[in-house]
Amino acid sequence: MTNDISVIQIGPMSQWVNPITAGVPGRRFLEGELGLTYIGLSASGTAPGAASMGWHRHEALEEVYIFLAGRGEMALDEAVVPVSAGTVIRVAPHVMRAWRCLPDSPEPLAWMCVRAGGKTLADIGADHTFDRDTPRPWSAR
Amino acid sequence: MTNDISVIQIGPMSQWVNPITAGVPGRRFLEGELGLTYIGLSASGTAPGAASMGWHRHEALEEVYIFLAGRGEMALDEAVVPVSAGTVIRVAPHVMRAWRCLPDSPEPLAWMCVRAGGKTLADIGADHTFDRDTPRPWSAR
Repeated sequence: MTNDISVIQIGPMSQWVNPITAGVPGRRFLEGELGLTYIGLSASGTAPGAASMGWHRHEALEEVYIFLAGRGEMALDEAVVPVSAGTVIRVAPHVMRAWRCLPDSPEPLAWMCVRAGGKTLADIGADHTFDRDTPRPWSAR
Repeated sequence: MTNDISVIQIGPMSQWVNPITAGVPGRRFLEGELGLTYIGLSASGTAPGAASMGWHRHEALEEVYIFLAGRGEMALDEAVVPVSAGTVIRVAPHVMRAWRCLPDSPEPLAWMCVRAGGKTLADIGADHTFDRDTPRPWSAR
């Protein structure tokens, strides 16, 4: 295993619990743990009734919110979007955003937030190379 | 709702099913559906016994693989990493990668892949602005 690969275990989403600071749930940011260079990634389990401390927006970073369990709401400027397992939301940098887990959610709102910015996927273009000939390790078993 | 925000529903991960082409599971790429600019995102449900068609690597894009359910393996150059709910793996661009869901996995391997590249998070720096004063929409309820 080299520095090019890093693996962490954050457990099943039912165990994701945000650290609470001054009564407000934080987020577990994974980019440092993983040594990520271009991608920001956080995993959150927001308890029923809990909410973000306030609003925030970005100057350059695009974000995508991926909701995986529980029921909540995301406020995006004037819009309020209901969120549940499978809701995926793109948010452009300058949009103000806030979120909460509904008080009557049957379980914590489990979600991930991804952020990145700078060079667009279109500018990078198709940068992948396939190899369909080399056996994969399980092929020989 | 403006072009700055887009919302899609992909359903709970138990319903994520990869399209099968020529016997090989593909991935559902979400960046087009969401209009993402900087972030590439795919959601996958790989059936027990199914595997990627082969290996691939990138020139510029960093990837992070987030495993959410099921049991599988990820091959990363010479390494083989067991993966299950909560395994999160960073892969640098030039590493060759392949994956499979174990034949005896109790459920499909549910996972997401995020990719981005170009400007680093460190180069972008702290680009967020907080607003802890404006009421959030649920505050008045």
